[in-house]
Amino acid sequence: MPADGRLEVIALEGIPEVAPGDELPALLLAALERTPDVLPLRPEDVLVVTQKVVSKAEGAIVDLRGITPRPEALEFGRRWDRDPRQVEVVLQQARRVIRMDRGVVITETAHGFICANGGIDASNVGPRSGEIVTLLPADPDASATAIRDHLRARTGVDIAVVISDSFGRPWRWGIVDVAIGVSGIPPLVDLRGQPDADGRVMKSTVRAVVDELASAAELVLGKSAGRPAALVRGAHPPRGEGRIAELLMPREADLFP
Amino acid sequence: MPADGRLEVIALEGIPEVAPGDELPALLLAALERTPDVLPLRPEDVLVVTQKVVSKAEGAIVDLRGITPRPEALEFGRRWDRDPRQVEVVLQQARRVIRMDRGVVITETAHGFICANGGIDASNVGPRSGEIVTLLPADPDASATAIRDHLRARTGVDIAVVISDSFGRPWRWGIVDVAIGVSGIPPLVDLRGQPDADGRVMKSTVRAVVDELASAAELVLGKSAGRPAALVRGAHPPRGEGRIAELLMPREADLFP
Repeated sequence: MPADGRLEVIALEGIPEVAPGDELPALLLAALERTPDVLPLRPEDVLVVTQKVVSKAEGAIVDLRGITPRPEALEFGRRWDRDPRQVEVVLQQARRVIRMDRGVVITETAHGFICANGGIDASNVGPRSGEIVTLLPADPDASATAIRDHLRARTGVDIAVVISDSFGRPWRWGIVDVAIGVSGIPPLVDLRGQPDADGRVMKSTVRAVVDELASAAELVLGKSAGRPAALVRGAHPPRGEGRIAELLMPREADLFP
Repeated sequence: MPADGRLEVIALEGIPEVAPGDELPALLLAALERTPDVLPLRPEDVLVVTQKVVSKAEGAIVDLRGITPRPEALEFGRRWDRDPRQVEVVLQQARRVIRMDRGVVITETAHGFICANGGIDASNVGPRSGEIVTLLPADPDASATAIRDHLRARTGVDIAVVISDSFGRPWRWGIVDVAIGVSGIPPLVDLRGQPDADGRVMKSTVRAVVDELASAAELVLGKSAGRPAALVRGAHPPRGEGRIAELLMPREADLFP
């Protein structure tokens, strides 16, 4: 067990290409068994699973060959060198469009996530990859819970599970991995009311610990390595039930609606 | 050395309360020597140092007792229960104000960071903490380089250094640690042009790896533990010279100016 003030992030080994209908929880357990030094699981462990493998297993994919873009998608695609069928899927999946400019479509998804292209992704989806896109899982908290329940049933250990995806941010270039689904872990850790190192009480320190766990996991996963999951051991996040919706700012609180 | 696909994050032990004029690079080296199993350093290590301890060592602090708020700061403070002197300092440090509403002042700092309160922080700054705020370091890349140079001179190993701070984000509650200064590491890793797991070439995957390193470090540091620095070992980020400004989106590229 890592000492206090230490954590390990361990990429799971040997997860095969996942296809619709595959039992992802069982594949993850097999990968945990295959990866050295991770079993037995510990209650403080957090398993981070990337979105794409979840979407593929759940069949949350769309074949662009069956999509007819609306005129707006055709025009946007022509102007910005984007596949208009993919733009169409982004618009179909959107609850509302936040920005649509310079080749970027930023939408609010049905889940309430605000992100580029509605989390829809064209890369790395199998042999027909040019024509297939993955959607976000319909209910990422439920996806995380299914994995957690399977691992608890088979190992007797109840660990937290985070589903992650790569999001951009305003004002800063580059994507980082954040959480889009959780089970067994509250998405926010409220440090308000805890004294800081000087004994003062911190006023406004609510930490999105599940986003930091997702980013830490990404550092060992990489985009091109075919590694869709990592175990974070030693972070000791607070346990409890939670929903990713708790992390999403309601529009009326948002300074950038 | 962590195997491929594994990393460790190790909080440095025994860093004392830092005061203006303290030699932070020497304090960090002493802490590395005190922390088990981190020496010798390895070229792939990344040392993440949180902003507050950098600002304190550099004397980037302001005593609010010497600040006279402008009328706008007085009114904002009264309306939203904020210290008007702190609002005044935020406005003084701002290149421009992005939003000023609901008790939150979001500014662009002289460095180009867009963040709440201009990165100015009132908590955890010593015995007079109610009256003292920390500013961001004047040149966080230079702060990182000073630490890197000292460690290289004393250990013979040239590691990357990241200065981190806690930023909020639009649309999501909670703060996460991101990078505000770098030395010896490019802030962005451009995976475009590298084939992904299916052999396709990824089109738009530029990863803000230094932000993910900052978030990973935060998981072992915490806000109240008096731990201002952590070593990330095993992430193997690309090495090279870089400036944090490369990560900041110019206003003309920004969809949320």
